[in-house]
Amino acid sequence: MSGAKEIDNLIELMAKLPGLGPRSARRAVLHLIRKRALLLTPLADSMCRVAETARECLNCGNVGTADICDICESEKRATGQLCIVEDVADLWAMERSGVFRGRYHVLGGTLSALDSIGPEQLRIPRLLDRVTSEDISEVILALNATIDGQTTAHYIADQLDGRVRVTSLAQGVPIGGELDYLDDGTITAAMNARKDI
Amino acid sequence: MSGAKEIDNLIELMAKLPGLGPRSARRAVLHLIRKRALLLTPLADSMCRVAETARECLNCGNVGTADICDICESEKRATGQLCIVEDVADLWAMERSGVFRGRYHVLGGTLSALDSIGPEQLRIPRLLDRVTSEDISEVILALNATIDGQTTAHYIADQLDGRVRVTSLAQGVPIGGELDYLDDGTITAAMNARKDI
Ligand SMILES: [Zn+2]
Ligand SMILES: [Zn+2]
Repeated sequence: MSGAKEIDNLIELMAKLPGLGPRSARRAVLHLIRKRALLLTPLADSMCRVAETARECLNCGNVGTADICDICESEKRATGQLCIVEDVADLWAMERSGVFRGRYHVLGGTLSALDSIGPEQLRIPRLLDRVTSEDISEVILALNATIDGQTTAHYIADQLDGRVRVTSLAQGVPIGGELDYLDDGTITAAMNARKDI
Repeated sequence: MSGAKEIDNLIELMAKLPGLGPRSARRAVLHLIRKRALLLTPLADSMCRVAETARECLNCGNVGTADICDICESEKRATGQLCIVEDVADLWAMERSGVFRGRYHVLGGTLSALDSIGPEQLRIPRLLDRVTSEDISEVILALNATIDGQTTAHYIADQLDGRVRVTSLAQGVPIGGELDYLDDGTITAAMNARKDI
């Protein structure tokens, strides 16, 4: 395409990113080459470092650069509340809203009969362990308002029945909506109006 | 945002790419971390290599990995015809159409009184040199069908008047259209129906 193998290879790899097609990948690569010192070199370096250091937190499933993530390690986070999210993007969305000061547990998806995803395929056994071992007083289910999300929420509520207070985000989360698309205010409202299941 | 400095830094850099905002940058980074071996590491390596090797061809202004680009170096390209484009993305679009087998000259923009871009700010002096030294029989103006593009085409045609045949892409280029957005068939039709200025 460009006639230079290395550049064509970079365009091909960039086109594999979500949100970029072949055309925007070509534009992005030309932009990178023009801003070599300011953008291309720092981006390459940053990718190398992240490729070397990124890993899933062994405790909660958040993505970070250590075996136990900063949120799990932090002594400033409240220990009594555990917020359950489907994936890391949802955890980051919760953090941006700034409304929650406890710790998280990332399921890594939702239960789905169709895709044969059961509790063992998610971080649900680990969640049950944490509730026992970490002195949790409240489990807040911040799952997407989709059918699979709500099925998963009810499954977890059943498993924890009687052992701990279980609440869920309520007011403000639109039907069929996904957390990562919501503005911070909506997330805050939903958190403040959470209700017992 | 993620709580890990290296990851936040990567998200910030990715968000500077054209076509990616903060949200799609976060999605892209999570995708990269999940596909570390398959995508993140190869992408980082490819960026490093391109950052080290990419340069503008000293002859035509194309972007490649050598001082003189593969197209200028290739003995298979016809020497008599020179196709003039505004920028490298347009050259790549011409190459994808496969209709042209001569060489290129990338102006690096268009004349613009408003932005005080004159012939000296573009590769126009170099173009005039090439027409003299390279035994060019035809200059094909493949500039965008915008006001600045057409002003630039007429300026170049005036400069070359009588020295060489000057043609321009005609049929098929929509008014106000930009080459890089056209499909290959439209570019081919425009090339085949090119007319003398
Ligand atoms: Zn953690
Ligand atoms: Zn060249």
